[in-house]
Parts: sequence; C-alpha cells; structure tokens
Amino acid sequence: MELNKNIMDYDTVSLDDANSAVVIIDQTKLPARTEIISLKTAQEIWDAIYLLRVRGAPAIGVAAAYGIYVLAKGIAETDYESFYAEFRKQKDYLNSSRPTAVNLSWALNRMEQVVLKNKDRSVAEIKQLLKAESVEIQEEDIRVCRAIGEYGLTLLKPGDGILTHCNAGKLATSKYGTATAPIYLGQERGYHFHVFADETRPLLQGARLTAYELQSSGVDVTLICDNMSAAVMRNNWVDAIFVGCDRVAANGDVANKIGTSVVAAVAKLYHVPLYVAAPTSTIDPDTPTGNEIRIEQRKPEEVTEMWYGERMAPDGVKVFNPAFDVTDHELIAGIVTEYGIAREPYTESLREIMSRKRTRPA
Amino acid sequence: MELNKNIMDYDTVSLDDANSAVVIIDQTKLPARTEIISLKTAQEIWDAIYLLRVRGAPAIGVAAAYGIYVLAKGIAETDYESFYAEFRKQKDYLNSSRPTAVNLSWALNRMEQVVLKNKDRSVAEIKQLLKAESVEIQEEDIRVCRAIGEYGLTLLKPGDGILTHCNAGKLATSKYGTATAPIYLGQERGYHFHVFADETRPLLQGARLTAYELQSSGVDVTLICDNMSAAVMRNNWVDAIFVGCDRVAANGDVANKIGTSVVAAVAKLYHVPLYVAAPTSTIDPDTPTGNEIRIEQRKPEEVTEMWYGERMAPDGVKVFNPAFDVTDHELIAGIVTEYGIAREPYTESLREIMSRKRTRPA
Repeated sequence: MELNKNIMDYDTVSLDDANSAVVIIDQTKLPARTEIISLKTAQEIWDAIYLLRVRGAPAIGVAAAYGIYVLAKGIAETDYESFYAEFRKQKDYLNSSRPTAVNLSWALNRMEQVVLKNKDRSVAEIKQLLKAESVEIQEEDIRVCRAIGEYGLTLLKPGDGILTHCNAGKLATSKYGTATAPIYLGQERGYHFHVFADETRPLLQGARLTAYELQSSGVDVTLICDNMSAAVMRNNWVDAIFVGCDRVAANGDVANKIGTSVVAAVAKLYHVPLYVAAPTSTIDPDTPTGNEIRIEQRKPEEVTEMWYGERMAPDGVKVFNPAFDVTDHELIAGIVTEYGIAREPYTESLREIMSRKRTRPA
Repeated sequence: MELNKNIMDYDTVSLDDANSAVVIIDQTKLPARTEIISLKTAQEIWDAIYLLRVRGAPAIGVAAAYGIYVLAKGIAETDYESFYAEFRKQKDYLNSSRPTAVNLSWALNRMEQVVLKNKDRSVAEIKQLLKAESVEIQEEDIRVCRAIGEYGLTLLKPGDGILTHCNAGKLATSKYGTATAPIYLGQERGYHFHVFADETRPLLQGARLTAYELQSSGVDVTLICDNMSAAVMRNNWVDAIFVGCDRVAANGDVANKIGTSVVAAVAKLYHVPLYVAAPTSTIDPDTPTGNEIRIEQRKPEEVTEMWYGERMAPDGVKVFNPAFDVTDHELIAGIVTEYGIAREPYTESLREIMSRKRTRPA
C-alpha cells in the first residue's frame, strides 16, 4: 500500500509486474488519501468492486478482466475440464459483486470466451491468452477514451470554460475518462481550460473525484454546488458542457447521473452547448427513447444522512432519490463517441456511428 | 428549555407572559431536536441572532424588537436622558450581531423612534409604548405573510404539486412564512398539496428547516436534492413553484438563495410557473435590475467541509460559493406581495404595488 501519491501518476486499474495482483487506486479513500492497493485473492477483488474501491463502468470491466486473469493464473489444475470448472466458479463469484454493472459481466464473458474457444490448447497457453485479452480490454478502453477526447477537443478552443457533472473521468476508466478526455488532451496541448465541477449530490462524485483528479493533473478547476450552475453561466464563464452517460437511446435521449438534465435546462437558457461523451458501448439501439429507460431509485439515507450517519433531515421524511435522469435529445448539441460526433437528427447519426463501428472495430 | 415539541405548536419568536424574555425555537438544533429557549440578557439575545438560533429576515426583526423591549424594560433609570443613553447602548450592541441583516437595524430603528418621539412621557409610559411597538412589528409580519398566502393561494388548486427552494417558511418569519404561506393556508382548507422541498446546498435549509416544518404541520412533503428538480418536473409532479426572495429590483429581477435561478431555468423548460413570494419590504425601486445587486460570496468550507468538519473535496481546491443568484424577471410568472400579485411588465406592476402600500399601510 502506497500513501498520498498523486493519482495522475497511477493507472486507475493495472496489472502488477508479476501478473499476480490487480493494482487499483482505492476510491473510497479519496480525496483525503491516495492509497494504491493490490488485490490478489478472489475475496479482495470481489470486495473492491462491491465496496466501490474501483467504480465507473469501464474501470470495473478492466478490473474484472485483470481479476479473473490473476485468479485463473493461480489455478493449479492442468487438465482443461478441471481448469474450466474452477475458472467458472471464480468468474461467477466475481460477477456477483455488482450484478447491475453491465461492463462487469461483459468483461467476464469476454474472458470466458477465450477459455471456451481454446479448448484444444494447453492450460498454460490459455493463461497467456487470458492475459493478452485482459490487456486488450484495457487498451481498447484507453483507445476509446482517447478517440472521444480527440473528437471532443475539436469542439473547444484554448481558454474555454467547461462545466462537467459527476465523474466521467480518469477514475471511472483506465485513463483520460470520457467527459474529461478532451480536457486532459487540451491540458497536454496547453489549452488552459477553466473547468467547473458540479459537486453532484447526493454522493459527491464531482467534489470527491472530479475536482480531485483535475486538480491533481494541474487543470484549473473550480468546485461548485449543483445549484450554482446558473450563476456560473449567467457570468458567461462557461463555453461548453461535457458530461458522461450511462445509456443513449436510439433517438439520442441520454440517461446520466441525476442532475444532468438540470444542467441541460440551464445550458439551454444561457445558450451553452451541452456535449455528451458516450463510448458506443453505451448506445442502445433497442431503447427507442429515454422514456423507456428504467431509472434506479436509491435509498433515502444517501440524501438524509450524507456521509457521516447523522441525519440532516427530519425523521421519516419522504425522499425521492433517483440515481439518473433523462436528458431530452433536443437539449444535446452533440454526442461524442470514439467513431465521431453524432448530431441531430440523432436517430440517423447514431445509426451511422454504429455502422462505422461494425466495419472498423476499436 | 422544552425539548422535542412539535414546532408548529410554537411561534418562531414570541414574548413570554412576564415580558421578561424573548422565546425562540433554537434553529441550530433542528431537525434533530426542537428546543424552545428563553433569552433574557443582552448577551443571550445577541448570541441567538449571531449564531443563527433565530434566522430569516422577518424573524430576526421581530426577535430584535422584542429583545430591545425586554432590555429596555430592565433599565433601572427613570429619567429620560439616562434611560435613553442606556437604551442606545443596548440597541447598538444588538445591532452589531448581524450587521448585514437589514431587518435587524430596521426593527431596532423603529423601536428607537418610539423612545425619541415620546421624550415628554414618563419612562414607564415609554416602556409600555415599546411593548406595543414590538407586538405591532410581529403582528404586521403575520398580516403580511397571511396576505401573501391568500394571494398565493389564488394561483393554486387542490391537489397541486408545489416545489420550493431553501426556507422562506414559518421558521424565517413569525408565522406562515412567505413562500410557504399559500401552502399552510391551503393545508388549513384541505387542499392536500404535494410539496417537493429542495435540500438547498450548501447549508441545507430546505432539508433541515423546510422539510421539517412542513412535515410537522402535516403537509405531504418530499425531500429532493437540488439537482433532482428536472426529474420531478419531467414526471409532471409540479404544478407551481413558490420561492422567497431577498431583494426585488425595479424591473422584477429577483435575488434569492443560490439555486433559485436553476429552478427557474428548469421550470421554463417544463412550462411550470414560478412565483416569488415577496413582502414589499424586499422591493427595492432604487435597484434598476438584477445586474446591480451585489452577490455575497461565502467561505469555501461551506461547500468543501459540509457540516462535520471533514473535507469532502481536495485540499486547496478553488470554490465558487455565492449566497444568492439573480433570476431574470422573464422567468417569473408572478411576484406575490401583501398588496397583490405583480406580473409582467414588472416595472409598472411593482410601481402600482408600491403606491398601494403608501396609501394603505399594512
């Protein structure tokens, strides 16, 4: 365990040199402490995902891939059937850590395919192929984020003010983040952006994670409460808004962290373009509009007890605590993917993006 | 000190039967405990205002009026000059408790005028007149809030969903509140409103005070984070928004608690009318527009350390923490005063309201 390092010197998730541990930044300790921890056992990996020590869909996928590789490497059996049986056991266990995280099962299934497709190889060879696949999953994530960053940067100019909400940053991915990718690429090229980070109630990912990672990388960042976005935009301090997303419907409606559509409403009033950074993995052609996206309701205590267990609201008060909201496509100036920028009409432009993906994989 | 009473059974501020103490609900203990405390000494009254045990412009005015009366009653001197010298000393002391609170000096000056205009009377008579004036200040506050409630109620119908921000409630006034006055009057008449209370970061007056007083009075109230207003309005749960205000400019622009203009932007998008409850004392004809209203910046720790002194954001991060924002008059469907409802064009309608006030005092 290494303490109080600059998080920008570390990958959110990586494999150690001995291929025997998944190394992560423990996000539950941020921003008070930057702790780099090594996960070696199935229990440690499961706990890290369950307890949100690693979070953000792409980062969870990479952690799961490295995790199942590390566990597979430790399997003593050398005959295929015994090896696969043990692999399945470990895979099912890891998959139970956050059942609703799509990237978790996606990454684990992709790793399982390597085992299933290579029945005729030795277990030692399969272990090598599993390593290669897990590394490829991370490298794809980095390429996708970087491509989103390059396309996003074309929408910005040096000195721009940028507002972001929640954490669609480096800490949610392997590197760059999605909504933050244009910011980091601009930072590398001397763009000197001024970033406003919404704190993002109730769980404060903006204050705890986004403000922290941007500050750690030298970006000029100012923290605001979610209800201050209008004051900031009224002062003409914001040229563009970049947010991440959890799901994009076929018509361009976007589900993202609660409060995104509040920012969108304010942005419309002040004529500030809102861009959604969306890896194509979040585009769901089978969901016609945002109205069909089921919104997870979370427990009232996140709002009433904040972080310290002391109630900040009367006992028994009713609470509405949706994890996400839906932003209408009409409020979105562009959806930035690794294959280019979709614009109105989204039904057509998103279809075009997905066809590019089919002909030219990441 | 009485504990754990229902706050609706108590006035926010009152004079005790012996005329020897100002009795208040200690708002710093809410919502965990309802403590009714008696303030007898100058120090106790000063502390209560300084420490926000009593807060909200009208309530501070009433507390100061009762406070200076209680202190004046205790002055032993019976000759006018000695009495007045002592009165002035006490008045200046109380006035130093919150120098920027306009109602504090307004109420104390009004009490001083009673002393100055009655030089020819005995000190005992002056003390009686001071009592009458302090009671009148409170009764005026109640009449003003009630009138705002009656006008506001004409904008609502039974069963309506109402969203409010911050605390412009009973706890900020003697009774009824301003933005909450239509809600309380409707409650008395069986309107069965459904109220959504924004928690109102950073100081959480909505969670701590508004949700609490509405719940205590039996109103159906649901607490939300400030960034959930769009989700609530997208669900068609809100028929009208009522907020208080700190200052109304001549053109109808309104300065109110930070986040009000975010609610206004969301309300515009979802076609929900936003009404501002404004005692005419907050209308400032000498301020042409909202652009001339100076916005107080508060300390970063309100945002970064929340309520418990542990940082929720990285050390040294920049914070923008304005106490108020300005809502453009174009976003306001009506300004509800004790003399009626002003509507666009506000420059004319507010002037008409103020002329009614001159010819027909509260």
